[in-house]
Amino acid sequence: MHLSNSPDPKLTVLAGGVGGARFVLALRAARPEARITVIGNIADDIWLFGLKVCPDLDTLMYTIGGGADAERGWGRADETFHAAAELAAYGAQPDWFGLGDRDLATHLIRTQMLSAGYPLSQVTAALCARWELGVELLPASDDRVETHVVVEEGGRKRAIHFQEWWVRHRAALPASDFVMVGAESASPGPGVVAAIESADAVLLPPSNPVVSIGAIMAIEGIRDAIRTTRAPVVGMSGIVSGRPLRGMADACLNAIGVDVTAAAVAAHYGARPDGILDGWLVDEQDADQVPAIEAAGLLARAAATVMSDPASSVTAAEALLGLADEVARRG
Amino acid sequence: MHLSNSPDPKLTVLAGGVGGARFVLALRAARPEARITVIGNIADDIWLFGLKVCPDLDTLMYTIGGGADAERGWGRADETFHAAAELAAYGAQPDWFGLGDRDLATHLIRTQMLSAGYPLSQVTAALCARWELGVELLPASDDRVETHVVVEEGGRKRAIHFQEWWVRHRAALPASDFVMVGAESASPGPGVVAAIESADAVLLPPSNPVVSIGAIMAIEGIRDAIRTTRAPVVGMSGIVSGRPLRGMADACLNAIGVDVTAAAVAAHYGARPDGILDGWLVDEQDADQVPAIEAAGLLARAAATVMSDPASSVTAAEALLGLADEVARRG
Repeated sequence: MHLSNSPDPKLTVLAGGVGGARFVLALRAARPEARITVIGNIADDIWLFGLKVCPDLDTLMYTIGGGADAERGWGRADETFHAAAELAAYGAQPDWFGLGDRDLATHLIRTQMLSAGYPLSQVTAALCARWELGVELLPASDDRVETHVVVEEGGRKRAIHFQEWWVRHRAALPASDFVMVGAESASPGPGVVAAIESADAVLLPPSNPVVSIGAIMAIEGIRDAIRTTRAPVVGMSGIVSGRPLRGMADACLNAIGVDVTAAAVAAHYGARPDGILDGWLVDEQDADQVPAIEAAGLLARAAATVMSDPASSVTAAEALLGLADEVARRG
Repeated sequence: MHLSNSPDPKLTVLAGGVGGARFVLALRAARPEARITVIGNIADDIWLFGLKVCPDLDTLMYTIGGGADAERGWGRADETFHAAAELAAYGAQPDWFGLGDRDLATHLIRTQMLSAGYPLSQVTAALCARWELGVELLPASDDRVETHVVVEEGGRKRAIHFQEWWVRHRAALPASDFVMVGAESASPGPGVVAAIESADAVLLPPSNPVVSIGAIMAIEGIRDAIRTTRAPVVGMSGIVSGRPLRGMADACLNAIGVDVTAAAVAAHYGARPDGILDGWLVDEQDADQVPAIEAAGLLARAAATVMSDPASSVTAAEALLGLADEVARRG
């Protein structure tokens, strides 16, 4: 299959939050005719004040649906935080999570539907119906998977919820490990494996390799599908010039002993079938890393990948599609 | 006991929402030294979007605590309705209840505490701690009691939740009955009976006689305590010149076949011990009804009772305390 020849290619994207969402926007713009399926990370989900909050799924939904705050990157546009201020005035904990008033409506509906017995995948589909995404958003699993971060404070190790580490501590507490609680027994959500198996290309946007892509890959059924799909699997580095483009992926990589370079992340992912990638796109600033990545068995290319505006994002998405095409042509 | 002699009288108020709240504010101003217990109606409580909403308790808490919207009468000052707008954008039902963003924080905490196993009385105490009411607010019961309204549409009778009738239909759907579901098996909340039995006076503010006071009285243990307490039990008419001062009590009274007059409400309440009152205060505009009320076995007085501002509210509260005193003196 050549993506460039297919009238309506099936593109499957594994995504975390902001980076994944922007990539999907660009991909939709670059290939309006494509059938795009987004498999969203759920391991950063958290229960707050009795509500099920799915930050990555919501960032994807709001951003792709045109309802996100473009500047802040997360949450809703025109957001207010009156409920959160009142919760704080009552002394309710946690007080470090930015729970917007508009955002609350999403969590209320989700929680009520979950309580009524609907699985997260159906809840997500119901919520997305309003946003007319033009892509299908699938939670990685209907089962509960939760990333916990092993941190050391005062010589004592303890595990805290990923959001506490990420939002409250701004990833500044030294972490020694990430545990995706529940991942070992979680099944891929409905449609997830099929979307990987039947794809014309599987794309990894510059999402966090540890807590976004890594958390999705922690689900065995997804990992197996990625390893065995006939589709090319290609990814784009979120590490450029030794630093994450956004977010705090460096802290995550440090914690698991992976260097903060595009090549080190590629080696961490590894080449299929033992690893999960066929090809790896690095930014032109990291062109010198291409040989090392190819030595690890991956097809590597360098291109302009920094998504600083819609036009450059489309360019980056096109470059990744080109790499997928090249993998496919090589068979 | 003469209230006028007691250094710190114990005053117990049975209250619905707005009228009860304003009366308690006036009572606190009139008797800053008094130990005031407010027994709040819970039968207008409703579950919305998975949250337990207690409109009367919240109106009491917000108003007495200085956080209410003075103009609207219900809900929080400086309120926004962004979450509600989003719920409507998702097509979530019901869309007729005004759920404010600040208000949501109260419901979130309440719901979470209830889910954790705390009874409503402890939840209410925890919420009230923030508001420093200067009075004790007790839910009438920790059990679920819910007013349903029997309405007829298209020749078919059905029962709808009180809030649907009150808020959605503005009490304009002809009602033929009110059913306080759960009242027959509900127990008075902790402290409720003691507050009635040990009071120096039990006061009924101009709350709705049917769905506020009537709903509290539907709980047998409260009704019995009111009938047998040694304290004088006196009330103030919310009907003035044949019309309710606020709210839609006329629609409620019509439904149960009680005339919309101060005297008819007094007769509906009845004289203790078969009824629940010793004395009934009517507005000076209804002074001509005093003889009829006294003929029904109640001590009746007319005074300026319309609470149009803080000063007139204190005057009204003083008049009701005066009536309680007069009942007590007569023994």
